[in-house]
Amino acid sequence: MKLGFLGGGQLARMMALAAYPLNIKCAFLDPAKDACAGPLGNLFVAAYDDESALKQLGAWSDCVAFEFETVPAGVLKLIADQAPHYPSYEALLTTQDRLHEKKYFKKLGIETAPFEVVDCLSDFEGAAAKLGRPSILKSRRLGYDGKGQVMLRDDTNLSEALDAIGKVPAILEGFVNFDREVSIIAVRARDGETKFYPLVENIHQNGILHISTALNNDPFQCQAEEMVKSLLDDLDYVGVLVLELFLAGNKLYANEYAPRVHNSGHWTIEGAITSQFENHVRAVSGLPLGDTNMVSPCAMINLIGTLPDTSDILKIPGAHLHLYDKQPRPGRKIGHVTVCASTDSMLKQQVERVLELIK
Amino acid sequence: MKLGFLGGGQLARMMALAAYPLNIKCAFLDPAKDACAGPLGNLFVAAYDDESALKQLGAWSDCVAFEFETVPAGVLKLIADQAPHYPSYEALLTTQDRLHEKKYFKKLGIETAPFEVVDCLSDFEGAAAKLGRPSILKSRRLGYDGKGQVMLRDDTNLSEALDAIGKVPAILEGFVNFDREVSIIAVRARDGETKFYPLVENIHQNGILHISTALNNDPFQCQAEEMVKSLLDDLDYVGVLVLELFLAGNKLYANEYAPRVHNSGHWTIEGAITSQFENHVRAVSGLPLGDTNMVSPCAMINLIGTLPDTSDILKIPGAHLHLYDKQPRPGRKIGHVTVCASTDSMLKQQVERVLELIK
Repeated sequence: MKLGFLGGGQLARMMALAAYPLNIKCAFLDPAKDACAGPLGNLFVAAYDDESALKQLGAWSDCVAFEFETVPAGVLKLIADQAPHYPSYEALLTTQDRLHEKKYFKKLGIETAPFEVVDCLSDFEGAAAKLGRPSILKSRRLGYDGKGQVMLRDDTNLSEALDAIGKVPAILEGFVNFDREVSIIAVRARDGETKFYPLVENIHQNGILHISTALNNDPFQCQAEEMVKSLLDDLDYVGVLVLELFLAGNKLYANEYAPRVHNSGHWTIEGAITSQFENHVRAVSGLPLGDTNMVSPCAMINLIGTLPDTSDILKIPGAHLHLYDKQPRPGRKIGHVTVCASTDSMLKQQVERVLELIK
Repeated sequence: MKLGFLGGGQLARMMALAAYPLNIKCAFLDPAKDACAGPLGNLFVAAYDDESALKQLGAWSDCVAFEFETVPAGVLKLIADQAPHYPSYEALLTTQDRLHEKKYFKKLGIETAPFEVVDCLSDFEGAAAKLGRPSILKSRRLGYDGKGQVMLRDDTNLSEALDAIGKVPAILEGFVNFDREVSIIAVRARDGETKFYPLVENIHQNGILHISTALNNDPFQCQAEEMVKSLLDDLDYVGVLVLELFLAGNKLYANEYAPRVHNSGHWTIEGAITSQFENHVRAVSGLPLGDTNMVSPCAMINLIGTLPDTSDILKIPGAHLHLYDKQPRPGRKIGHVTVCASTDSMLKQQVERVLELIK
């Protein structure tokens, strides 16, 4: 079995590490010749819309998967002519535009923050009047890690806010005064078999995920599973899908979904019986899904911008280091540390030891 | 950090899978162009004594490690000129000859089965008279998976037995009527830090390892640790070393040691906090060692000769499949299955489900 990936970053790298034990060989298409998944398979260095490279990847692969969701429709068509790809066109397309995504949530009866379309300043003025402040201006396309977003506060000038996101089509989103940010990671096989990982609590710093902690038997597990299941079934989805949620009071609000493995699921490599990476590979390859239960209390801390001393991290009992072989750069995810412990209080101590080293 | 391996088989493959998350890149020297570690790094296809290839591997590597112990002294010298290598010349050399190995055990006060040198038929007659029957004729060099061995029974003709092992220098070993075969996996860092995995019980079939089960709090753990520690310290050893033992009554007898990761330690990928592969890589790379404690009851079953249906294996809860991408052939190790469970009795059930599929 040969699995081709569009993208050769850390997500593809970790999927490849999970694929080889299943006898699945990997190839990657990435514009960077030093793409960090490169040493783990065939690397086709080319732009993502390079027709000849896409054909090469498609011809090499029994099946194609994606590391990111911003895949242009034309690219998908070229690939579809050569090899089956998962997830489907619809699953990728819907999440490429925040407005479509929000409307899609609504259609499925999945609660979201209130939102308004912002195509120009007059739209924006109307939306701001309706949703009040604080609220958040978000570009409809290509936002990640807090990019393309502006928080609208009492003193924010609307015209400057629009300029800050480059005057692109956007939405204004009502602010959910959430108690917690959580995500639910689910996986669906080709035959419809579906499994859910324990809910994850996520803490962000400067718009970038900082810490994810797996929640055992959380009271909102069931509600979150129902929300993500309606998405998976409606999309006839194949692979791992992650739904980001806000918890406010007793209610979950969908923020966005990622049709792929997700940073908030990196803890599953050691913390769950089968990792999100292995389960994504299993699903897209037509294999049965693995057990998604937790092994022990577990948390993940991102390494962002700079790298602490490797030895110091490795000395922490139960700490697992995952480096992505990427050049350090401010705001760049260059690795993560997973900490497993036998009790929640020991986990908290170990997490604090890691945080001490990276602050 | 760049780690070069002499050998590109399944052990190198699993070490590479453990090395990448630590930002360690891998290369392999192997005579087979389809060596199964090949897709996971640079593969130099050449004979193990090919001077130019060895120099290339040495020049590429910050450090060189070995997948097997039968490395000729000349090769080691060539590598040593280019890059540091672990384990040392002495550790490899001693285990290349069963007679030297047994004498070395004796020197360190490590109990073994009684043995006699067999260089010719008259030696053999004397040895057989002394040690009685059953006893085992073993070639001094290059024996593995039961190869180069003949069991001396009441009706075994001595001359035919010598012919069967190719009349090579040998030893005759007194038969230890053992209750259990066990192995102790240990790892020692460059700075002398040493850790031990839980004792493993091994069941062989036709001379090839069939099932390994990790033993939690076994009463012989301490005795086994002392035996292997005297080896590690005397050799000033760096890396994983495995000592195979017979348990008869209340006594452990050393059989042989392997200066490398070992089939009886494959369960550690899921069953221990840090796998033997990661700890070997950490040790030879000068990094601190990881925790060797068990995560849960765990056993490993080898897939030998033919492959069962992948999906059937993956459907067993808690079963982890590791395929080596090797062509099936009678007696060839082509993969293994690790089973983890929350209790010993559940483990037994899961192991039986795997055995049903491969019988």
